[in-house]
Amino acid sequence: MAKKIVIIGGVALGPKAACRARRLDPDAEITLIDKDTLISYGGCGIPYFVSGDIANPEDLYSTVFHAKRDPEFFDVYKRVKVMTGTEALDIDRKAKTVRLRDLNTGEESEISYDVLVLGTGASPFVPPVEGFDLPGVKCVANMHQAIDIKSQIASGEVGSAVVVGGGAIGLEMTEAMSALWGVETTLVEMCDQVLPQAMGPEFTRMIENHLEENEVKVMTSTRVLRILGDEDGVTGVLTDKGEIPCDMVIFGAGVRPNNALAKKAGLAIGQFGGIVVDARMCTSDRNIYAGGDCVEIRNQITGAPTYLPLGSLANREGRVIGTNIAGGNERFDGATGTFCLKAFDLSVATSGLTLEQAKAAGFDAVEGLSAQADRAHFYPGHDWLFIKLIADRTTRRVLGIEALGSAGDAVKARVDAVAALLPFHVDLDAISNLEVGYAPPFASAMDVVNAAANALKNIIDGLSNPVEPRDFLAEVLPDESRLILDVRSAKQAVPMQEIYGKRWLNIPQDELPVRYDELPRDKELYVLCNTGLRSYESQVLLRAKGFTNLKNIQGGFLVARKLDPSFGTKK
Amino acid sequence: MAKKIVIIGGVALGPKAACRARRLDPDAEITLIDKDTLISYGGCGIPYFVSGDIANPEDLYSTVFHAKRDPEFFDVYKRVKVMTGTEALDIDRKAKTVRLRDLNTGEESEISYDVLVLGTGASPFVPPVEGFDLPGVKCVANMHQAIDIKSQIASGEVGSAVVVGGGAIGLEMTEAMSALWGVETTLVEMCDQVLPQAMGPEFTRMIENHLEENEVKVMTSTRVLRILGDEDGVTGVLTDKGEIPCDMVIFGAGVRPNNALAKKAGLAIGQFGGIVVDARMCTSDRNIYAGGDCVEIRNQITGAPTYLPLGSLANREGRVIGTNIAGGNERFDGATGTFCLKAFDLSVATSGLTLEQAKAAGFDAVEGLSAQADRAHFYPGHDWLFIKLIADRTTRRVLGIEALGSAGDAVKARVDAVAALLPFHVDLDAISNLEVGYAPPFASAMDVVNAAANALKNIIDGLSNPVEPRDFLAEVLPDESRLILDVRSAKQAVPMQEIYGKRWLNIPQDELPVRYDELPRDKELYVLCNTGLRSYESQVLLRAKGFTNLKNIQGGFLVARKLDPSFGTKK
Repeated sequence: MAKKIVIIGGVALGPKAACRARRLDPDAEITLIDKDTLISYGGCGIPYFVSGDIANPEDLYSTVFHAKRDPEFFDVYKRVKVMTGTEALDIDRKAKTVRLRDLNTGEESEISYDVLVLGTGASPFVPPVEGFDLPGVKCVANMHQAIDIKSQIASGEVGSAVVVGGGAIGLEMTEAMSALWGVETTLVEMCDQVLPQAMGPEFTRMIENHLEENEVKVMTSTRVLRILGDEDGVTGVLTDKGEIPCDMVIFGAGVRPNNALAKKAGLAIGQFGGIVVDARMCTSDRNIYAGGDCVEIRNQITGAPTYLPLGSLANREGRVIGTNIAGGNERFDGATGTFCLKAFDLSVATSGLTLEQAKAAGFDAVEGLSAQADRAHFYPGHDWLFIKLIADRTTRRVLGIEALGSAGDAVKARVDAVAALLPFHVDLDAISNLEVGYAPPFASAMDVVNAAANALKNIIDGLSNPVEPRDFLAEVLPDESRLILDVRSAKQAVPMQEIYGKRWLNIPQDELPVRYDELPRDKELYVLCNTGLRSYESQVLLRAKGFTNLKNIQGGFLVARKLDPSFGTKK
Repeated sequence: MAKKIVIIGGVALGPKAACRARRLDPDAEITLIDKDTLISYGGCGIPYFVSGDIANPEDLYSTVFHAKRDPEFFDVYKRVKVMTGTEALDIDRKAKTVRLRDLNTGEESEISYDVLVLGTGASPFVPPVEGFDLPGVKCVANMHQAIDIKSQIASGEVGSAVVVGGGAIGLEMTEAMSALWGVETTLVEMCDQVLPQAMGPEFTRMIENHLEENEVKVMTSTRVLRILGDEDGVTGVLTDKGEIPCDMVIFGAGVRPNNALAKKAGLAIGQFGGIVVDARMCTSDRNIYAGGDCVEIRNQITGAPTYLPLGSLANREGRVIGTNIAGGNERFDGATGTFCLKAFDLSVATSGLTLEQAKAAGFDAVEGLSAQADRAHFYPGHDWLFIKLIADRTTRRVLGIEALGSAGDAVKARVDAVAALLPFHVDLDAISNLEVGYAPPFASAMDVVNAAANALKNIIDGLSNPVEPRDFLAEVLPDESRLILDVRSAKQAVPMQEIYGKRWLNIPQDELPVRYDELPRDKELYVLCNTGLRSYESQVLLRAKGFTNLKNIQGGFLVARKLDPSFGTKK
């Protein structure tokens, strides 16, 4: 008898599992159920639809060959029966049935399964502040909301907007509204940085500055207290830093797994509210599988559960489920949380743990920041690429990587290559010699990712005694008693000496071997060059000459200026 | 007493080893010796200097901060003594001395060492054909030759040129001369494809076609018999396919390791003529280290020795040597041969073994070819990215990857991520779930590299019965008895039916479930769509309906047309 496969949820995981199962089992009866009328769309494309980069909503649920992925498409091409506008109310695990309700007619029915797949996704988190339900307060959880937002913006009704939440969706929506449509946009984030889950504070500060350069107002460490307005719409957002007038509020403050159905059925639920699954993506009921935004998976760095609502994972998990429900045996071993994002003309990518996350997980974590050209420095059109590596001091195990630059694919390339190794728990030597391809249009002979590993090894080995650029700006620079040794040229140092006076010392690197005796030996010296490389070499030289109290400013002038565009322009 | 470190060879490996050793050992006496007057230059940048992308030769031996890396620079900044114009004649391993000759004065001298490093590099291979020493016959082994070539081209003396050798240097020089300078260039390659060491024949055919689109004449399977001309210069090249008139001949026919000094000293030399080194980059003499283009290293796929003269490896090996000669203990475990190249508007990247190399190494090798968009297919500006994976059928171990596309960094990103895993001998499941970053500006949710692994797994599992696009073009298409089933739209199939007649069947994929009975069951059917995806699905459907004799044309119409631009335009 044909196996009865019932799949609840039709955005990413569900359709993928359905199609894979169909290809392996030509006889199975496969039914895909979704509350919505639209299914199988590229939800991550919503910001690009709102921005106008993607003209029509259909583009997000069409194949490469412009076939609309609607119920008829699934019926004809995939031989999968689709029931849209249908809500799953209850699972009877003993009888192996699901009770359904037709959302148009209210009629209830029952469907039986041999194997059930839950791909119920996640819902946007909206903090329960007063006014959260006013018209003009939006989320971007599905296509209908996206179409609604875009039509309002396109009709010229929205002069200004507040985006609440500086995660990926928040940032992408911020760009979407301000870049093309010219909506005056304010980004409000509760934490002291954007992308607080994904990255440490340096690169996010660079993004924040870049957003400001693009006319976006960024308010971090800001809490939303109330949405202002009435039944005619939103008039503003009240925060603990004051009122922001606006015509629209968009919540991008993270999502929560849709676990109600699983919970009611008594399936195991984890600490983040996600359904618990094993490496075969099977729940605590061996006839029920789950994946995508409604499950927790294993963090491959810490071994602990993690919640990563990402469309890429949903698709890969969906295929594994499709194989397993058709009688196969594939594993999904977890994830390290590889992430990438384009924000105007900058791109960032990251994988693994941030420094703070690594410390919280019990590692003796240390980080190194490197700046190098994204291609051969003699090749035209090269630009700076910044890489941060996080490792454990004792075992030298690599725990995370972050990168930022203007050439997005090149930024992502470095992170993807290191991300591939993170599940193997490699140490820094593996990154020193990581065999990324080399030709001048693509990389330096010693690639920036190799250089970043070498820089962090030097820190761990005590050859480089670093100070974080953010600490340099926040603590060293304001303290008149600290001495900075600038080993760049006199021409570069003079403007700094005009601002910081006598405590800004300057001996160019080439003169250091004969002039080091001019330097005080009893005071801490903060050594600075343009990127941190020559200051490191100078530190090595000075240490050989008996200096003991040296700090190398990681990333040098370049990174400090990117973190604070006013650095070196005024006191 | 200060350790005496002598390093022979000053291009890539030597300077890197010298500088690293200096930073670890402030007291060592470090001497760097080179025959040439120019050192520490980016040799791989030579084609970009010749093309004019890089204006001045100095740019190739300057730092990011425009300091010239000349002997004075090494003396002042690195405290490394440099002896240029100095040839190393002999090594006395017992006395630990090297006999030197000053190439200006002819004067000989001796230098003693505690530890010696050989970074003697490689020399271009010039086949011993008649006329190889005529004026106008060039190599691009060093800066002087590059400057010479560029000045001749710039002065307008060179109307046409022949480049001998379709490896990386040959291809880069071909583009350099034809793109900016408009030199009529013919590329001559002995093998039946360009890049014969690096890639299988599909993607190289695409490159060859792209070169032809850019006015380069490509002659593969062509042997150079003689260089024509006299003491006034070259007038042409005689090949087994006829005479090619030209004003300049450039040899890019590979390099051979400079092993004479090591050989004379009795050091172990390997099967490729490279110096044998262990994982610490130490030769058969424990006081002598070697690296870069003059050594053989371990192929991490096969475990066998390999010869990979690449600047990136030289730099990474140089750092390992620098650490070890200063008393440290680092390893260089070998390489998988990651490679990338830009040719006009196409880029290719590759790592590991080609199908033929894998078979020769004893693997039961099988390959899969996939085509997918390089970013979300709904994101503006996306383009096709082609990936080929090679794996062992029995163990499913991944043995190699090749990629081609127009967005170079994106092409390289996919290969670098897989290359990182090759030394770990992972199987295809690791690539199916490879956690590359996803956002619509960078990738599809199921990235092309994941899709490529899934496609190859389907082949190995017998779900997809592929025919290589090159075999389809060469064997199937010319054979009037073979039937092609085109599952694209009627509109796309009609032009093909006009050319190929009744043997070009057409049932669009959506009609196949109700029309499959129109197809003959007793004949082999070659199923075709645009990329190989819908033809695979159709094959699955037909097999479920009892068809047994099916072949899926890998890469579909798209790849076949890229391999043969005339495919589908005439009989």
